[in-house]
Amino acid sequence: MEQALIYAVPALGLVGLIVMAIKSAWVTKQQTGDKNMVELAGYIADGAMAFLKAEWKVLSYFAVIAVILLAWSGMSVETSSPVIAISFLIGAVFSAFAGYIGMNIATKANVRTTQAARTSLKHALKVSFTGGSVMGLGVAGLAVLGLGSLFIVFYHMYVQSVGAGVNGLEMEKALEVLAGFSLGAESIALFARVGGGIYTKAADVGADLVGKVEAGIPEDDVRNPATIADNVGDNVGDVAGMGADLFGSYVATILATMVLGREIVSVDNFGGIAPILLPMVLAGLGIVFSILGMFFVTIKNDKGDVQHALNMGNWSSIVFTGIASFFVVNYMLPETLSIRGYDFTNMDVFYAIILGLIVGTLMSIITEYYTAMGKRPVKSIIDQSATGHATNIIAGLAVGMESTVLPILVLAGGIMGSYAFAGLYGVAIAAAGMMATTAMQLAIDAFGPIADNAGGIAEMSQLPEEVRERTDILDAVGNTTAASGKGFAIASAALTSLALFAAFVGVAGIDAIDIFKAPVLAALFVGGMIPFIFSSLAIAAVGRAAMDMVNEVRRQFREIPGIMEYKAKPEYEKCVEISTKASLREMLLPGAIALITPILIGFGFQGVFEQVSSAEMLGGLLAGVTVSGVLMGMFQSNAGGAWDNAKKSFEKGVEIDGQMYYKKSEPHKASVTGDTVGDPFKDTSGPSMNILIKLMSIVALVIAPHISQKPHSTTLTEKIEIKKEINYEDGKKVVTETVTEIKTVN
Amino acid sequence: MEQALIYAVPALGLVGLIVMAIKSAWVTKQQTGDKNMVELAGYIADGAMAFLKAEWKVLSYFAVIAVILLAWSGMSVETSSPVIAISFLIGAVFSAFAGYIGMNIATKANVRTTQAARTSLKHALKVSFTGGSVMGLGVAGLAVLGLGSLFIVFYHMYVQSVGAGVNGLEMEKALEVLAGFSLGAESIALFARVGGGIYTKAADVGADLVGKVEAGIPEDDVRNPATIADNVGDNVGDVAGMGADLFGSYVATILATMVLGREIVSVDNFGGIAPILLPMVLAGLGIVFSILGMFFVTIKNDKGDVQHALNMGNWSSIVFTGIASFFVVNYMLPETLSIRGYDFTNMDVFYAIILGLIVGTLMSIITEYYTAMGKRPVKSIIDQSATGHATNIIAGLAVGMESTVLPILVLAGGIMGSYAFAGLYGVAIAAAGMMATTAMQLAIDAFGPIADNAGGIAEMSQLPEEVRERTDILDAVGNTTAASGKGFAIASAALTSLALFAAFVGVAGIDAIDIFKAPVLAALFVGGMIPFIFSSLAIAAVGRAAMDMVNEVRRQFREIPGIMEYKAKPEYEKCVEISTKASLREMLLPGAIALITPILIGFGFQGVFEQVSSAEMLGGLLAGVTVSGVLMGMFQSNAGGAWDNAKKSFEKGVEIDGQMYYKKSEPHKASVTGDTVGDPFKDTSGPSMNILIKLMSIVALVIAPHISQKPHSTTLTEKIEIKKEINYEDGKKVVTETVTEIKTVN
Repeated sequence: MEQALIYAVPALGLVGLIVMAIKSAWVTKQQTGDKNMVELAGYIADGAMAFLKAEWKVLSYFAVIAVILLAWSGMSVETSSPVIAISFLIGAVFSAFAGYIGMNIATKANVRTTQAARTSLKHALKVSFTGGSVMGLGVAGLAVLGLGSLFIVFYHMYVQSVGAGVNGLEMEKALEVLAGFSLGAESIALFARVGGGIYTKAADVGADLVGKVEAGIPEDDVRNPATIADNVGDNVGDVAGMGADLFGSYVATILATMVLGREIVSVDNFGGIAPILLPMVLAGLGIVFSILGMFFVTIKNDKGDVQHALNMGNWSSIVFTGIASFFVVNYMLPETLSIRGYDFTNMDVFYAIILGLIVGTLMSIITEYYTAMGKRPVKSIIDQSATGHATNIIAGLAVGMESTVLPILVLAGGIMGSYAFAGLYGVAIAAAGMMATTAMQLAIDAFGPIADNAGGIAEMSQLPEEVRERTDILDAVGNTTAASGKGFAIASAALTSLALFAAFVGVAGIDAIDIFKAPVLAALFVGGMIPFIFSSLAIAAVGRAAMDMVNEVRRQFREIPGIMEYKAKPEYEKCVEISTKASLREMLLPGAIALITPILIGFGFQGVFEQVSSAEMLGGLLAGVTVSGVLMGMFQSNAGGAWDNAKKSFEKGVEIDGQMYYKKSEPHKASVTGDTVGDPFKDTSGPSMNILIKLMSIVALVIAPHISQKPHSTTLTEKIEIKKEINYEDGKKVVTETVTEIKTVN
Repeated sequence: MEQALIYAVPALGLVGLIVMAIKSAWVTKQQTGDKNMVELAGYIADGAMAFLKAEWKVLSYFAVIAVILLAWSGMSVETSSPVIAISFLIGAVFSAFAGYIGMNIATKANVRTTQAARTSLKHALKVSFTGGSVMGLGVAGLAVLGLGSLFIVFYHMYVQSVGAGVNGLEMEKALEVLAGFSLGAESIALFARVGGGIYTKAADVGADLVGKVEAGIPEDDVRNPATIADNVGDNVGDVAGMGADLFGSYVATILATMVLGREIVSVDNFGGIAPILLPMVLAGLGIVFSILGMFFVTIKNDKGDVQHALNMGNWSSIVFTGIASFFVVNYMLPETLSIRGYDFTNMDVFYAIILGLIVGTLMSIITEYYTAMGKRPVKSIIDQSATGHATNIIAGLAVGMESTVLPILVLAGGIMGSYAFAGLYGVAIAAAGMMATTAMQLAIDAFGPIADNAGGIAEMSQLPEEVRERTDILDAVGNTTAASGKGFAIASAALTSLALFAAFVGVAGIDAIDIFKAPVLAALFVGGMIPFIFSSLAIAAVGRAAMDMVNEVRRQFREIPGIMEYKAKPEYEKCVEISTKASLREMLLPGAIALITPILIGFGFQGVFEQVSSAEMLGGLLAGVTVSGVLMGMFQSNAGGAWDNAKKSFEKGVEIDGQMYYKKSEPHKASVTGDTVGDPFKDTSGPSMNILIKLMSIVALVIAPHISQKPHSTTLTEKIEIKKEINYEDGKKVVTETVTEIKTVN
C-alpha cells in the first residue's frame, strides 16, 4: 500500500505535465495571423526571452554561492546533509523552468488569441485560457513531480536504508534536505517577482507618462518606443513572476505540512507516513480536478459570460477537491491522531481542509469587492477625484488600508478554526487544501495577461474595432481575476508562513516564541520593519527606472524623425534593454535583505541573551515579517487595484454630484495620477510581500538545525513530574503549598 | 525617609505648576497690539474654546459611561476596586485641563508674539517660547501632582492601613486603581488627538484648496472664510492634541514602571518601595531641570540662531537629568535587585536610564534627517516632482517607508540593551528616563504652533514685511521641532507600550505570550490590522470634512459679494462650525475601536481554547498593535513631514537636472499635491498611532485582573522541582533518562 501511494504522487505530477504538453501543442498549432502581427509578437517574445536569459545569468551566480554555502553548512550538523545543495539546485531549476514554460506559452498564445478574436469570442477565450492552463499545469505538475520524486529518494536514502522509524531524526533529516528544494524555488521566485515587477511597471509608467500624457497617443500604440517593453512586462511580471510565486507557495505549503506531519505518530496502513504523504496526495488530486474543471471554462457564443465560465471552472475544481479530500482523509489517516499534545480525529483534518478552501474563496471575494468597478470603495475614489489629485490619492490610500480588515478577520478566523480542529497540523493542511487547486487558479491568473497582450497586439496592428472589443472583454475579466488571484496568493502565503513557522519551531527545538521577552519583541519590531523597507526599495526602483524610460522615449521622439507619421520605426530594443537592466540591478538589494536578515539574527544572537535563544528571536522576526508583510501586501495590492479601476471607470463616464465626467476631464486626470501611483503598489511591491514572508520563513527552516536548542536527538515521549512549592500571601498570612503535577508529553 | 520622598513627588509637581503660573502671568501682561490684531486673535481664541467646550460635552457622556462600567467592574474582582472610577475621572479631568491650559496660553501668546515681532526676534522668541513653557510645565506638573497625590492616597488606603507588605496583592491593587488615572488621561488624549487632528487638517486642506489654488490668495489671507478655522486648528490639533498625547504618555510610562517596580523585592531605606517611587522622582526632577534648561533658550539679537537656542535648552535639561539620575539611583536603590528571576544592580538601572535618553535623542535626530530640507530624502521627492504628481507621491511614500528602518533599529537596540541591563524594569525605566524631560520637550513642541499662529495674525493684519520675516524664522524652526518632537513621541509610545505590556503580563498572571500558538498569532494579525483601519478612518474623515469645507468656502465667495475687495467680512464662524462638527463626529468610531477591541478579545475568548488563555491572546493583540502602530506612525508622520518640506523648498527655488524651479511651476504644483496628501498623514493619523497603542495597552492593564490566570493571590516565591523522564531515540536505540531540576522563581 505504502509503496503504491508514494509512487502515485510523482505519477500525478507527470499526468499534469502530459496534459500540459497536449494543451501546449494545441495552442502552438493555432493560426498566428498576418505578417505584421507575427512580427510584433516576435518582438515581445524576443524581449521576454532576452530578459529571462539575462535574469538566469544573474541568478546563476547567486545559485553557485548558495550551493557552496548550503553544501558546507549541510556538513556541519547531524540533521542536515550536503545533499541539501543539490535539492536547492533542483528547486531553483524547476522554478526557473516553470517560469519559462509560462512565458513561452504566453508569448505564443497572445498573438493566437488576437487572431482567434477575429472570428469569435468563444474561440479567443479558448486559446487564451488554454494558454493559461499550460502555465497552471506546468507549475503544479513540476512541483508535485519534483517534491514527490525527491521525497522518495530522500526517504529511501535517510530513513528506509537504515531501517529507522518514520517519526525520528532520520525523517527530520530527509525533510530538512527536501526543504532545500523549497528554498531554491522560493529564492528564484523572489527575484522573478521583484525583477519582473520592476520591469513591467518601469515600462508601463514610462510608456504612459510620455505616450499617453505628453504625446497624446493611445495605449499600446505602435509609435510608442516603450510599447513593446510594456507588453514584454506583462509576460515577465504577471506571467513568469506570478508563476514562480505560486510555484514557491505551493511547494512551501506542502513541505511545511510534511514537516509537521512527521511529528504525528500515526497508526496507518502506510507505514506511519500518511500525515506526511497527505499534502502531496491532495496536491496530486488537485491537478486532476483542475484538469476536469478546465472543461467547464467555455462559452456558447459572443454573448456568453466569460467571468461566469471562469467561475464555473474554479468552483468545480474546488468542490471536487473538497469532496475527494473526505475520502482521502478517511482512507489514509487513522481515526485519532495527536500533535504536540493536541488530539484530533481524521474528520477534524477534513474539516480543516474545507476551512482552507473556504478561506481562500472568501479572500478572493473580498479582494474583488475592494477593487471592482461600481462597488463602494472604487466609487469613493472616483468621488474624491473631483477635488483633485491629492484627494484621489488620500481616498485610495484610505481604501487600501480599510481593505485589510475583512481579510485579516477571515484569516484570523481560519487560523483559529483550523487550529481548533487539528492543532498546528490543521493550520498547515488548511493551507495545503487551499493550494490544492493551484493549477486552476494559475490558469485563470495567467489568462489575464495573455488577453491583455492580445489586445495590445490588436491595437498595434490596427485590427478592426470588433477584434479589440472582444479582447477588451477578456481583458476586463482578466483584471478582476488578477485582483482576486492576488487575494488568494496573499492568503496562501500567510497560511503557508504560519505552517513554516510551526515547522521551524519544531526543527529549532524551542518550545515557545515568547514576545513578552524583550529581545524577542525587539526582533518582532525589526521583522515588522522589513516589509516597509522592501516596499520602499521596490517602489523607488520603479520610480527611478520609469524616469530612465521617460528620458529614452523623449529622446527617440526628438531624434528619430517620422515616428509620429508611422514613417520610421522606434528603437523598441533600447526600451527593452532599459527595463531589463534596471530590474536586474534593483532586485538585488531587496532580495539580499530577505535572505540575509534571518541568517544575521539566527547566528548573530546565539548565546547573547541568557534567557532567550537566537532561535526564539528568529521566531519573533518571522512573526513580525509575516504580520506586517500580509498587511502591507493587502494594503498595496488593493489600493493599486482600486485606483486602476477608478481610472477605468472614467472610460464609460462617471457621475459625480450629478455631473458626468469622461476621459480627459480634470477628475479623470486625477484618477490617472492615482493609477500611476498604484502601478508599483499592485504589481511590484504588493505581490512581492508574499514571497518575502515565505522566503524568510524557509531560510529560517533551513538554518534551524544549526541554531537548534535541542538537548537530545529525537524526543519520543517525555514524562514530567513537577513539584511546586509556592509561598504566597493571602490577606496577611504567608501560606506555603506543595503541588505535584505529572504530565506526559508526546 | 520614606515619608519625605513620597511627599516630595507631588511637591515637585506643584513647583512646576507655580513656575507655570508665573510664566503665564508674564505672557498675559505682554502687549497685544492694535485693535485689528486683537480682534483676529479673539476669533481664534473663541473658535478654539468653542471646540474645546463642544468636545468636552461629547466626552462627558463617554466619561459617565466609562465611570459606571469601571465602578461596576471594580467591584467584581479582588485586585481592583470601584475607586478606580474616581481615579479615571480625575485622570480625564486633569488631561482635559492640561489641554485647556495649553490652548488658553497659546491663544494668548500668539498675538503677543506677533506684537513682540514688531520690535525684535529675541523678544518674539521669548514670548512664544514662554507660551510653550507654560504648556510644558502645565502638563508635566499636573501629571506629577496627580500621580503623586493619588499614589499617596491609594498606598495609604490599601497597603499601609492594613499593614500589608509592599510587594503583595495590596500594592498591586493600589497600582491597579492608579491605572484608572492613566486610562482617563489616555482616553481623553485619544479623542483630543484624533478630533483635533481631523479639525486642523479639514480646515487646512479646505482653506488651501479653495483659497490658494482656486482663488489665488495667499495662505492666512483675511478674505478666506476658512482662515480662522485653519488657525484655530493649529491650536486644537497641534497644541491641545499634542499636550494631551504627551500627558498620556508621561503618565502611562511612570505608571507602567511603578507596576513593574512592585514586583521587585527591594531592601532600601524607603520601606521597599524605592523601585516604585523611582520613576515619579525622576519625573519630578525632570520638571526642575526643564525649568533650568528654559533659561538657556534665548538669543542675543535678530541674527541669533533660534534652533541653537532651543537645542541648548533641550540638551542641558537632558544632561542635567542624566547626571542627577546617577545620584538618585545610588541614593534610592539597593546595590542588587531582581525582577522575574533577572538579577541586576542599581548601576544597571542608571545605564538603562541613560540608554533611554540616548534613544530619545537619536530618534529625534533621525526623524529630523528624514524630514529636513536639503537632505537626501526630501531632495529625492523634489527631483521626482519633475515628472508629475504621481512620481512625487511615489517618492514620498518610498521615503516614508524607508524612514522606519533606522528608528526601528535604534528602538530594537534600546529594548535589547535596557533589557540586558535591568530586565523588564530596565525597559520601563529607560522609557521613564526618556520622558523625564517632557516639560522641556513639550515647551519646544508647543512653541511651533504659537509661532505659526503669530505669523498668521501678522499676515491677516497686513503688518510690515519685517514682522512676517521674524515670525517666519520662528515658524521654520517650529516645523523642524515638530518633526523631531513626533519622533520623540513615537519612541516614547513604543517604549511605554512595552512597559505596559510587561506590566499587563504580570497582572494577568500569564507567564508567556507565545506567538507560536495559533490563536495568539491570529490575535497578532488582528492587532496588526487595527492601525490600518484606524488610519484609514482618520484620513478618510479628513477627506470628507475637507470637501464640506471646500463647498462652504466656495458658497461664501459666490454668495457674499465684496469679500474679495475687503468690503465684506466672510462668515468665519460657519467654517469653524464645520470643522468642529466633523471632528467630533468622526473621532468616535476610531476611538471606539481602540477601546473596545481589547475588551472583546479579553472577555470574548475566555475559555475558548484549551491551551491558550484569552489573556495570552490579548497579549498577542497588543504586540500586533504596537509593532504595526509604531511602523505606521513613523511611515505616515515622516512621509507627511518630507512632503511638506519638499513643497516648502520650492519657495526659495530648487534645482532639478540643472534647471531652477520656483513657486507656481509644474513641479511645484506636484509638490503641493504631495503636501496635501501628507497633511492628514502627519497631523491626523500618524501621531494618533502613539495614543492608539498606549490606550489599548492601558485598557488591557485595567481589565487584566478580570481575565487573570492567577491560581492564587500573590506569589512571593515559588520553588519548582522538575523531574523529567525522557525517552528518546538516539541512532537506533531508545534511551531513557531522568533529569531533576530545581528552580526558584521570585
